Amino acid sequence: MRISELSVTTGVSVPTIKYYLREGLLFEGRRTAATQADYDDAHVRRLRVIRALIDSGVSVAKTREVIRSLEEPPASPHDLLGAAHAAVIPRGDEDVDLAAAEQLIERLGWQPGLCHEDVVAGVARALQSLQHADFDISEDLMAVYLDAVARIADAEIAGVPTESAEAAVRYVVLGTVLVEPLLLALRRVAEQVASARRFGAG
Amino acid sequence: MRISELSVTTGVSVPTIKYYLREGLLFEGRRTAATQADYDDAHVRRLRVIRALIDSGVSVAKTREVIRSLEEPPASPHDLLGAAHAAVIPRGDEDVDLAAAEQLIERLGWQPGLCHEDVVAGVARALQSLQHADFDISEDLMAVYLDAVARIADAEIAGVPTESAEAAVRYVVLGTVLVEPLLLALRRVAEQVASARRFGAG
Repeated sequence: MRISELSVTTGVSVPTIKYYLREGLLFEGRRTAATQADYDDAHVRRLRVIRALIDSGVSVAKTREVIRSLEEPPASPHDLLGAAHAAVIPRGDEDVDLAAAEQLIERLGWQPGLCHEDVVAGVARALQSLQHADFDISEDLMAVYLDAVARIADAEIAGVPTESAEAAVRYVVLGTVLVEPLLLALRRVAEQVASARRFGAG
Repeated sequence: MRISELSVTTGVSVPTIKYYLREGLLFEGRRTAATQADYDDAHVRRLRVIRALIDSGVSVAKTREVIRSLEEPPASPHDLLGAAHAAVIPRGDEDVDLAAAEQLIERLGWQPGLCHEDVVAGVARALQSLQHADFDISEDLMAVYLDAVARIADAEIAGVPTESAEAAVRYVVLGTVLVEPLLLALRRVAEQVASARRFGAG
């Protein structure tokens, strides 16, 4: 299809498609003339992934990293997950104290030394923000959090498709980036439900 | 204490404290001279809340909204939660289709019409991103998500302190803003744990 049809099919404007081509997010079409190229379903699928990432607030630079991991699949699904996490984890510049994070991670049954260091640092930064604000999470509540994320992760990883590396990468990358806002939004709904039950609806 | 001591106690620089005072995030100290004021523990606590919000990536404008809800507590803890959510929920400008979000919310046992509309729209936007990316969440996995967030919310709301409106607001505001990065970071750890179990560590 021509770029104008690609635009109609995906709802992405022609100038935006050209921008993604220049930025290397979208691969070139098959050139049919000096100023014309032919695009196919692979471009449609890729554009949908790009839009989903950008719409979720992921920057163009991060989107490029994620897209790259779609194009160059590393060895195992476990490595893919590490690459996906590394691309999308918010990174801080300051040093954080990893000890408390490592303790928590041990409670999930994992050796922190084997865990991707950016992931451990993410937990450490979150704990540090809570500590700076003097916000205490009780042992009981933390146990609920750990249990909930373990259930979620078990169900998610059990669903990783293994028929192709590309399918696995797509699943772990999008599952990380796109499911996060869903989980946070659902938590807010569930909090309003629980609060209405405890305190009345206002 | 003087502003220099406030700075040492909280680790926030004097120019930054003055900026928060100008921006109305921090309330003025008790004036003791034309160019001097006296600060107390309430300023220390407030500064810690401000730093925690800003460090979590909340903008100055949003921080002001959250701080305002700390200063003008509405009627019930349920209303406070709504105010906290409204202040910190990422808002989109485009219209979203609420139908799928409302169905999900009904599965949490709630009437969507009674739920804060920004919260419903947040779920709708997350579902829309998934749909745009052609990313399907199975019924089984969605059931795990709903069950997990319901457990989390029940435990959180059971812990809302009721001794004062300020304590309740602080709990729901910080619990929303600061616990989100923790839950996402823990989910990533749990995913790496589960993936190492399923696929081997690489």
